[in-house]
Amino acid sequence: MPRLRSRTDERATTRVDLHEFAPPLIEFLGRAAYVELTLFENLSRAISTAPSVAAKASIGRAAELTLARHRALIAEIVRAGSTAAEAMEPYARAVDTFERETHGADWYETLITCYLTTGFLNDFFVKLANGLPENDAARVAAIYSGESGESLLAAELEAAIEANPRLASRLAMWGRRLVGDTMLVARAALHFGPNHVSDEARIEPVFTELIAAHTRRMDALGLTA
Amino acid sequence: MPRLRSRTDERATTRVDLHEFAPPLIEFLGRAAYVELTLFENLSRAISTAPSVAAKASIGRAAELTLARHRALIAEIVRAGSTAAEAMEPYARAVDTFERETHGADWYETLITCYLTTGFLNDFFVKLANGLPENDAARVAAIYSGESGESLLAAELEAAIEANPRLASRLAMWGRRLVGDTMLVARAALHFGPNHVSDEARIEPVFTELIAAHTRRMDALGLTA
Repeated sequence: MPRLRSRTDERATTRVDLHEFAPPLIEFLGRAAYVELTLFENLSRAISTAPSVAAKASIGRAAELTLARHRALIAEIVRAGSTAAEAMEPYARAVDTFERETHGADWYETLITCYLTTGFLNDFFVKLANGLPENDAARVAAIYSGESGESLLAAELEAAIEANPRLASRLAMWGRRLVGDTMLVARAALHFGPNHVSDEARIEPVFTELIAAHTRRMDALGLTA
Repeated sequence: MPRLRSRTDERATTRVDLHEFAPPLIEFLGRAAYVELTLFENLSRAISTAPSVAAKASIGRAAELTLARHRALIAEIVRAGSTAAEAMEPYARAVDTFERETHGADWYETLITCYLTTGFLNDFFVKLANGLPENDAARVAAIYSGESGESLLAAELEAAIEANPRLASRLAMWGRRLVGDTMLVARAALHFGPNHVSDEARIEPVFTELIAAHTRRMDALGLTA
Protein backbone atom coordinates (compact mmCIF):
# COMPACT_ATOMS: atom_id res chain seq x y z
CA MET A 1 0.00 0.00 0.00
CA PRO A 2 2.63 2.62 0.89
CA ARG A 3 4.48 1.78 -2.33
CA LEU A 4 1.32 2.23 -4.40
CA ARG A 5 0.59 5.60 -2.81
CA SER A 6 4.11 6.67 -3.48
CA ARG A 7 3.85 5.78 -7.17
CA THR A 8 0.60 7.75 -7.41
CA ASP A 9 2.31 10.80 -5.95
CA GLU A 10 5.13 10.51 -8.41
CA ARG A 11 2.74 10.30 -11.29
CA ALA A 12 0.87 13.37 -10.02
CA THR A 13 4.14 15.29 -9.81
CA THR A 14 5.18 14.28 -13.29
CA ARG A 15 1.81 15.22 -14.69
CA VAL A 16 2.04 18.84 -13.57
CA ASP A 17 5.59 19.43 -14.69
CA LEU A 18 6.30 22.01 -17.40
CA HIS A 19 9.75 20.56 -17.97
CA GLU A 20 9.42 19.83 -21.70
CA PHE A 21 7.78 23.13 -22.51
CA ALA A 22 10.55 25.39 -21.26
CA PRO A 23 11.95 27.90 -23.76
CA PRO A 24 15.70 28.46 -24.33
CA LEU A 25 17.41 30.22 -21.40
CA ILE A 26 17.63 33.74 -22.85
CA GLU A 27 14.00 33.63 -23.91
CA PHE A 28 12.96 32.49 -20.45
CA LEU A 29 15.00 35.20 -18.76
CA GLY A 30 13.98 38.01 -21.11
CA ARG A 31 10.29 37.30 -20.74
CA ALA A 32 10.44 36.69 -16.99
CA ALA A 33 12.48 39.88 -16.47
CA TYR A 34 10.03 41.98 -18.46
CA VAL A 35 7.05 40.45 -16.65
CA GLU A 36 8.72 41.20 -13.31
CA LEU A 37 9.38 44.79 -14.44
CA THR A 38 5.69 45.15 -15.31
CA LEU A 39 4.64 43.73 -11.93
CA PHE A 40 7.00 46.25 -10.38
CA GLU A 41 5.48 49.11 -12.41
CA ASN A 42 2.04 48.12 -11.12
CA LEU A 43 3.32 48.17 -7.55
CA SER A 44 4.90 51.59 -8.13
CA ARG A 45 1.55 52.90 -9.34
CA ALA A 46 -0.04 51.45 -6.21
CA ILE A 47 2.54 53.35 -4.13
CA SER A 48 1.90 56.64 -5.94
CA THR A 49 -1.87 56.39 -5.57
CA ALA A 50 -1.93 54.88 -2.06
CA PRO A 51 -4.43 56.53 0.31
CA SER A 52 -2.03 56.56 3.30
CA VAL A 53 1.63 56.85 4.12
CA ALA A 54 1.43 53.49 5.92
CA ALA A 55 0.18 51.81 2.74
CA LYS A 56 2.96 53.48 0.73
CA ALA A 57 5.56 52.15 3.14
CA SER A 58 4.29 48.59 3.12
CA ILE A 59 3.83 48.44 -0.67
CA GLY A 60 7.32 49.94 -0.88
CA ARG A 61 8.67 46.77 0.65
CA ALA A 62 6.76 44.60 -1.84
CA ALA A 63 8.06 46.77 -4.69
CA GLU A 64 11.61 46.34 -3.43
CA LEU A 65 11.26 42.55 -3.54
CA THR A 66 9.78 42.57 -7.04
CA LEU A 67 12.40 44.97 -8.37
CA ALA A 68 15.11 42.81 -6.81
CA ARG A 69 13.76 39.78 -8.74
CA HIS A 70 13.74 41.83 -11.95
CA ARG A 71 17.32 42.98 -11.38
CA ALA A 72 18.47 39.46 -10.50
CA LEU A 73 16.95 38.16 -13.76
CA ILE A 74 18.77 40.95 -15.65
CA ALA A 75 22.01 39.83 -13.99
CA GLU A 76 21.33 36.30 -15.31
CA ILE A 77 20.72 37.73 -18.80
CA VAL A 78 24.08 39.51 -18.70
CA ARG A 79 25.73 36.36 -17.35
CA ALA A 80 24.27 34.43 -20.29
CA GLY A 81 25.90 36.89 -22.69
CA SER A 82 22.97 39.11 -23.69
CA THR A 83 21.77 42.56 -22.58
CA ALA A 84 18.64 43.57 -20.69
CA ALA A 85 17.19 45.45 -23.65
CA GLU A 86 17.94 42.76 -26.26
CA ALA A 87 16.54 39.96 -24.15
CA MET A 88 13.37 41.76 -23.01
CA GLU A 89 12.47 43.56 -26.24
CA PRO A 90 10.67 40.64 -27.99
CA TYR A 91 8.16 40.33 -25.13
CA ALA A 92 7.52 44.02 -24.44
CA ARG A 93 4.49 44.45 -26.68
CA ALA A 94 2.53 41.45 -25.41
CA VAL A 95 3.32 42.14 -21.78
CA ASP A 96 2.46 45.84 -22.19
CA THR A 97 -0.95 44.75 -23.47
CA PHE A 98 -1.34 42.60 -20.35
CA GLU A 99 -0.40 45.63 -18.24
CA ARG A 100 -3.04 47.82 -19.92
CA GLU A 101 -5.74 45.18 -19.58
CA THR A 102 -5.02 44.62 -15.89
CA HIS A 103 -4.37 48.25 -14.98
CA GLY A 104 -7.48 48.63 -12.82
CA ALA A 105 -9.77 51.64 -12.42
CA ASP A 106 -8.48 52.77 -9.03
CA TRP A 107 -6.02 52.00 -6.25
CA TYR A 108 -7.98 48.97 -4.97
CA GLU A 109 -8.12 47.30 -8.36
CA THR A 110 -4.45 48.09 -9.02
CA LEU A 111 -3.50 46.58 -5.67
CA ILE A 112 -5.47 43.37 -6.13
CA THR A 113 -3.95 43.12 -9.61
CA CYS A 114 -0.50 43.28 -8.00
CA TYR A 115 -1.44 40.67 -5.40
CA LEU A 116 -3.06 38.17 -7.77
CA THR A 117 -0.92 38.48 -10.90
CA THR A 118 2.38 38.50 -9.02
CA GLY A 119 1.38 35.29 -7.24
CA PHE A 120 0.13 33.58 -10.38
CA LEU A 121 3.01 34.53 -12.67
CA ASN A 122 5.78 33.86 -10.19
CA ASP A 123 4.27 30.42 -9.44
CA PHE A 124 4.23 29.83 -13.19
CA PHE A 125 7.80 30.92 -13.85
CA VAL A 126 9.05 28.76 -10.98
CA LYS A 127 7.39 25.73 -12.58
CA LEU A 128 8.69 26.62 -16.03
CA ALA A 129 12.24 27.14 -14.71
CA ASN A 130 12.36 23.40 -13.93
CA GLY A 131 12.89 22.81 -17.62
CA LEU A 132 16.01 24.98 -17.84
CA PRO A 133 19.51 23.45 -17.79
CA GLU A 134 20.24 22.25 -14.26
CA ASN A 135 22.53 25.06 -13.01
CA ASP A 136 20.42 27.79 -14.53
CA ALA A 137 17.28 26.20 -13.08
CA ALA A 138 18.79 26.31 -9.60
CA ARG A 139 19.85 29.94 -9.88
CA VAL A 140 16.47 31.02 -11.25
CA ALA A 141 14.67 29.08 -8.50
CA ALA A 142 16.77 30.94 -5.94
CA ILE A 143 15.63 34.27 -7.43
CA TYR A 144 11.99 33.32 -6.93
CA SER A 145 12.44 31.81 -3.49
CA GLY A 146 12.29 33.78 -0.28
CA GLU A 147 9.90 36.55 0.74
CA SER A 148 7.50 37.52 -2.04
CA GLY A 149 5.69 40.51 -0.54
CA GLU A 150 2.36 38.73 -1.08
CA SER A 151 1.38 38.83 2.60
CA LEU A 152 2.02 42.59 2.74
CA LEU A 153 -0.34 43.16 -0.17
CA ALA A 154 -2.94 40.79 1.29
CA ALA A 155 -2.84 42.71 4.58
CA GLU A 156 -3.44 46.04 2.81
CA LEU A 157 -6.33 44.57 0.81
CA GLU A 158 -7.91 42.93 3.87
CA ALA A 159 -7.77 46.24 5.74
CA ALA A 160 -9.30 48.07 2.77
CA ILE A 161 -12.16 45.56 2.45
CA GLU A 162 -12.79 45.61 6.20
CA ALA A 163 -12.99 49.41 6.14
CA ASN A 164 -15.33 49.35 3.15
CA PRO A 165 -17.12 45.99 2.77
CA ARG A 166 -18.86 47.15 -0.40
CA LEU A 167 -15.47 46.84 -2.13
CA ALA A 168 -15.67 43.06 -1.86
CA SER A 169 -18.00 42.31 -4.76
CA ARG A 170 -16.23 44.71 -7.11
CA LEU A 171 -12.79 43.28 -6.25
CA ALA A 172 -14.10 39.71 -6.55
CA MET A 173 -15.33 40.48 -10.06
CA TRP A 174 -12.05 42.16 -10.98
CA GLY A 175 -10.08 39.23 -9.54
CA ARG A 176 -12.01 36.75 -11.69
CA ARG A 177 -11.47 38.93 -14.78
CA LEU A 178 -7.70 38.99 -14.22
CA VAL A 179 -7.28 35.23 -14.64
CA GLY A 180 -7.77 35.23 -18.40
CA ASP A 181 -5.20 37.90 -19.22
CA THR A 182 -2.72 36.47 -16.73
CA MET A 183 -3.03 32.97 -18.22
CA LEU A 184 -2.38 34.38 -21.70
CA VAL A 185 0.95 35.84 -20.55
CA ALA A 186 1.91 32.50 -19.00
CA ARG A 187 0.84 30.36 -21.95
CA ALA A 188 2.77 32.56 -24.40
CA ALA A 189 5.96 31.48 -22.61
CA LEU A 190 5.46 27.77 -23.37
CA HIS A 191 7.24 26.03 -26.25
CA PHE A 192 4.86 23.45 -27.65
CA GLY A 193 6.07 20.45 -29.61
CA PRO A 194 4.66 19.35 -32.99
CA ASN A 195 1.79 17.51 -31.26
CA HIS A 196 -0.01 20.62 -30.08
CA VAL A 197 -3.31 18.97 -29.15
CA SER A 198 -1.83 16.39 -26.80
CA ASP A 199 0.51 19.03 -25.34
CA GLU A 200 -2.52 21.15 -24.50
CA ALA A 201 -4.01 18.25 -22.59
CA ARG A 202 -0.76 17.70 -20.73
CA ILE A 203 -0.36 21.27 -19.55
CA GLU A 204 -3.96 21.51 -18.39
CA PRO A 205 -3.24 20.15 -14.89
CA VAL A 206 -0.56 22.83 -14.44
CA PHE A 207 -3.06 25.55 -15.09
CA THR A 208 -5.60 23.84 -12.87
CA GLU A 209 -3.04 24.03 -10.10
CA LEU A 210 -2.18 27.68 -10.79
CA ILE A 211 -5.87 28.57 -10.77
CA ALA A 212 -6.36 26.71 -7.49
CA ALA A 213 -3.63 28.86 -5.97
CA HIS A 214 -5.36 31.94 -7.40
CA THR A 215 -8.61 30.82 -5.73
CA ARG A 216 -6.79 30.42 -2.41
CA ARG A 217 -5.45 34.00 -2.75
CA MET A 218 -9.00 35.26 -3.33
CA ASP A 219 -10.29 33.15 -0.40
CA ALA A 220 -7.66 34.64 1.87
CA LEU A 221 -9.34 38.03 1.33
CA GLY A 222 -12.81 36.55 1.80
CA LEU A 223 -13.57 36.95 -1.92
CA THR A 224 -15.34 34.35 -4.03
CA ALA A 225 -13.19 33.32 -6.95
CA MET B 1 51.73 80.44 2.92
CA PRO B 2 50.66 76.76 2.90
CA ARG B 3 49.47 77.20 6.48
CA LEU B 4 47.36 80.23 5.55
CA ARG B 5 45.76 78.37 2.64
CA SER B 6 45.00 75.47 4.93
CA ARG B 7 43.28 77.75 7.44
CA THR B 8 41.23 79.34 4.67
CA ASP B 9 40.10 75.92 3.52
CA GLU B 10 39.10 75.02 7.05
CA ARG B 11 37.10 78.18 7.41
CA ALA B 12 35.36 77.54 4.11
CA THR B 13 34.44 74.04 5.26
CA THR B 14 33.07 75.33 8.55
CA ARG B 15 31.09 78.01 6.82
CA VAL B 16 29.17 75.54 4.66
CA ASP B 17 28.35 73.13 7.44
CA LEU B 18 24.71 72.52 8.34
CA HIS B 19 25.70 70.93 11.65
CA GLU B 20 23.71 73.24 13.93
CA PHE B 21 20.59 73.17 11.82
CA ALA B 22 20.01 69.42 11.90
CA PRO B 23 16.62 68.28 13.17
CA PRO B 24 16.18 65.48 15.75
CA LEU B 25 17.01 62.01 14.37
CA ILE B 26 13.46 60.73 13.76
CA GLU B 27 12.49 63.94 12.04
CA PHE B 28 15.56 63.74 9.81
CA LEU B 29 14.89 60.10 8.94
CA GLY B 30 11.15 60.50 8.38
CA ARG B 31 11.57 63.42 6.01
CA ALA B 32 14.54 61.93 4.17
CA ALA B 33 12.74 58.58 3.78
CA TYR B 34 9.62 60.24 2.37
CA VAL B 35 11.69 62.38 0.00
CA GLU B 36 13.53 59.28 -1.19
CA LEU B 37 10.19 57.50 -1.72
CA THR B 38 9.00 60.44 -3.83
CA LEU B 39 12.20 60.42 -5.89
CA PHE B 40 11.61 56.70 -6.38
CA GLU B 41 8.00 57.30 -7.48
CA ASN B 42 9.27 59.76 -10.09
CA LEU B 43 11.74 57.17 -11.37
CA SER B 44 8.97 54.57 -11.52
CA ARG B 45 6.90 56.94 -13.62
CA ALA B 46 9.91 57.42 -15.88
CA ILE B 47 10.13 53.62 -16.26
CA SER B 48 6.44 53.27 -17.11
CA THR B 49 6.53 56.03 -19.73
CA ALA B 50 9.98 55.23 -21.16
CA PRO B 51 10.12 55.18 -24.97
CA SER B 52 12.30 52.04 -25.14
CA VAL B 53 12.99 48.80 -23.31
CA ALA B 54 16.65 49.83 -22.99
CA ALA B 55 15.65 53.04 -21.19
CA LYS B 56 13.32 51.05 -18.91
CA ALA B 57 16.16 48.70 -17.98
CA SER B 58 18.65 51.43 -17.20
CA ILE B 59 16.19 53.56 -15.21
CA GLY B 60 15.25 50.33 -13.42
CA ARG B 61 18.76 50.23 -12.00
CA ALA B 62 18.50 53.85 -10.82
CA ALA B 63 15.12 53.08 -9.25
CA GLU B 64 16.61 50.11 -7.44
CA LEU B 65 19.31 52.31 -5.90
CA THR B 66 16.81 54.98 -4.82
CA LEU B 67 14.40 52.44 -3.37
CA ALA B 68 17.29 50.82 -1.49
CA ARG B 69 18.11 54.20 0.11
CA HIS B 70 14.45 54.64 1.07
CA ARG B 71 14.31 51.15 2.60
CA ALA B 72 17.61 51.68 4.45
CA LEU B 73 16.24 54.92 5.94
CA ILE B 74 13.09 53.03 7.01
CA ALA B 75 15.33 50.45 8.71
CA GLU B 76 16.98 53.32 10.63
CA ILE B 77 13.53 54.62 11.64
CA VAL B 78 12.61 51.20 13.02
CA ARG B 79 15.96 50.95 14.74
CA ALA B 80 15.30 54.32 16.38
CA GLY B 81 12.03 52.97 17.78
CA SER B 82 9.46 54.46 15.42
CA THR B 83 7.54 53.13 12.41
CA ALA B 84 7.78 54.09 8.74
CA ALA B 85 4.26 55.56 8.67
CA GLU B 86 4.58 57.54 11.92
CA ALA B 87 7.93 59.00 11.01
CA MET B 88 7.06 59.93 7.40
CA GLU B 89 3.48 61.16 7.90
CA PRO B 90 4.31 64.74 9.06
CA TYR B 91 6.22 65.45 5.82
CA ALA B 92 3.89 63.78 3.32
CA ARG B 93 1.81 66.80 2.43
CA ALA B 94 4.69 69.19 1.72
CA VAL B 95 6.68 66.62 -0.23
CA ASP B 96 3.58 65.59 -2.21
CA THR B 97 3.22 69.24 -3.25
CA PHE B 98 6.85 69.19 -4.38
CA GLU B 99 6.11 66.03 -6.37
CA ARG B 100 3.13 67.64 -8.11
CA GLU B 101 5.06 70.80 -8.94
CA THR B 102 8.02 68.90 -10.38
CA HIS B 103 6.00 66.19 -12.15
CA GLY B 104 6.88 67.34 -15.66
CA ALA B 105 4.73 67.33 -18.78
CA ASP B 106 6.28 64.27 -20.44
CA TRP B 107 8.94 61.60 -20.09
CA TYR B 108 11.84 63.97 -20.79
CA GLU B 109 10.80 66.44 -18.12
CA THR B 110 10.12 63.64 -15.64
CA LEU B 111 13.54 62.18 -16.30
CA ILE B 112 15.44 65.45 -15.88
CA THR B 113 13.43 66.02 -12.69
CA CYS B 114 14.71 62.66 -11.42
CA TYR B 115 18.28 63.49 -12.41
CA LEU B 116 18.39 67.01 -10.95
CA THR B 117 16.26 66.68 -7.81
CA THR B 118 17.81 63.38 -6.73
CA GLY B 119 21.27 64.94 -7.00
CA PHE B 120 20.31 68.13 -5.19
CA LEU B 121 18.35 66.56 -2.36
CA ASN B 122 20.77 63.73 -1.67
CA ASP B 123 23.66 66.24 -1.56
CA PHE B 124 21.58 68.25 0.90
CA PHE B 125 20.66 65.35 3.19
CA VAL B 126 24.29 64.21 3.30
CA LYS B 127 25.30 67.68 4.51
CA LEU B 128 22.45 67.83 7.01
CA ALA B 129 23.29 64.36 8.37
CA ASN B 130 26.57 65.79 9.69
CA GLY B 131 24.58 67.35 12.49
CA LEU B 132 23.11 64.06 13.70
CA PRO B 133 24.59 62.20 16.70
CA GLU B 134 27.91 60.68 15.64
CA ASN B 135 26.89 57.03 15.17
CA ASP B 136 23.67 57.92 13.41
CA ALA B 137 25.51 60.37 11.18
CA ALA B 138 27.91 57.64 10.08
CA ARG B 139 25.14 55.15 9.32
CA VAL B 140 23.13 57.73 7.37
CA ALA B 141 26.23 58.80 5.44
CA ALA B 142 26.76 55.17 4.47
CA ILE B 143 23.21 55.01 3.08
CA TYR B 144 23.90 57.95 0.78
CA SER B 145 27.36 56.83 -0.26
CA GLY B 146 28.04 54.50 -3.16
CA GLU B 147 26.44 54.41 -6.61
CA SER B 148 23.65 56.95 -7.01
CA GLY B 149 22.28 56.11 -10.45
CA GLU B 150 22.93 59.71 -11.54
CA SER B 151 25.21 58.72 -14.42
CA LEU B 152 22.60 56.31 -15.78
CA LEU B 153 20.01 59.08 -15.90
CA ALA B 154 22.52 61.52 -17.42
CA ALA B 155 23.29 59.01 -20.17
CA GLU B 156 19.59 58.59 -21.02
CA LEU B 157 19.10 62.36 -21.12
CA GLU B 158 22.20 62.96 -23.22
CA ALA B 159 21.02 60.38 -25.74
CA ALA B 160 17.55 61.93 -25.84
CA ILE B 161 18.93 65.45 -26.42
CA GLU B 162 21.33 64.19 -29.07
CA ALA B 163 18.48 62.47 -30.89
CA ASN B 164 16.33 65.58 -30.67
CA PRO B 165 18.38 68.75 -30.10
CA ARG B 166 15.22 70.87 -29.93
CA LEU B 167 14.61 69.32 -26.49
CA ALA B 168 17.58 71.23 -25.06
CA SER B 169 15.97 74.64 -24.56
CA ARG B 170 12.79 73.18 -23.07
CA LEU B 171 14.74 70.97 -20.65
CA ALA B 172 17.06 73.85 -19.72
CA MET B 173 14.04 75.96 -18.81
CA TRP B 174 12.48 73.10 -16.85
CA GLY B 175 15.77 72.44 -15.07
CA ARG B 176 15.98 76.08 -13.95
CA ARG B 177 12.38 76.00 -12.75
CA LEU B 178 13.03 72.93 -10.59
CA VAL B 179 15.57 74.68 -8.36
CA GLY B 180 13.02 76.76 -6.46
CA ASP B 181 10.73 73.87 -5.48
CA THR B 182 13.68 71.64 -4.65
CA MET B 183 15.23 74.29 -2.41
CA LEU B 184 11.93 74.68 -0.55
CA VAL B 185 11.92 70.97 0.33
CA ALA B 186 15.50 71.23 1.58
CA ARG B 187 15.01 74.44 3.58
CA ALA B 188 11.94 73.02 5.32
CA ALA B 189 14.22 70.38 6.88
CA LEU B 190 16.39 72.94 8.68
CA HIS B 191 15.90 73.80 12.35
CA PHE B 192 16.66 77.48 12.78
CA GLY B 193 17.66 78.97 16.11
CA PRO B 194 16.09 82.10 17.67
CA ASN B 195 18.31 84.36 15.54
CA HIS B 196 16.67 83.57 12.24
CA VAL B 197 18.19 86.43 10.25
CA SER B 198 21.80 85.58 10.99
CA ASP B 199 21.05 81.87 10.50
CA GLU B 200 19.76 82.67 7.00
CA ALA B 201 23.05 84.36 6.21
CA ARG B 202 25.00 81.39 7.52
CA ILE B 203 23.20 78.78 5.47
CA GLU B 204 23.46 80.81 2.27
CA PRO B 205 26.87 79.38 1.29
CA VAL B 206 25.45 75.86 1.61
CA PHE B 207 22.76 76.62 -0.92
CA THR B 208 25.28 78.37 -3.15
CA GLU B 209 27.24 75.13 -3.15
CA LEU B 210 24.16 72.98 -3.82
CA ILE B 211 23.17 75.25 -6.71
CA ALA B 212 26.70 75.08 -8.12
CA ALA B 213 26.39 71.28 -8.18
CA HIS B 214 23.00 71.66 -9.89
CA THR B 215 24.65 73.87 -12.52
CA ARG B 216 27.33 71.24 -13.09
CA ARG B 217 24.59 68.61 -13.62
CA MET B 218 22.95 70.86 -16.21
CA ASP B 219 26.34 71.56 -17.86
CA ALA B 220 27.00 67.84 -18.10
CA LEU B 221 23.99 67.64 -20.45
CA GLY B 222 25.07 70.72 -22.37
CA LEU B 223 22.22 72.75 -20.86
CA THR B 224 22.57 76.32 -19.62
CA ALA B 225 21.55 76.56 -15.99
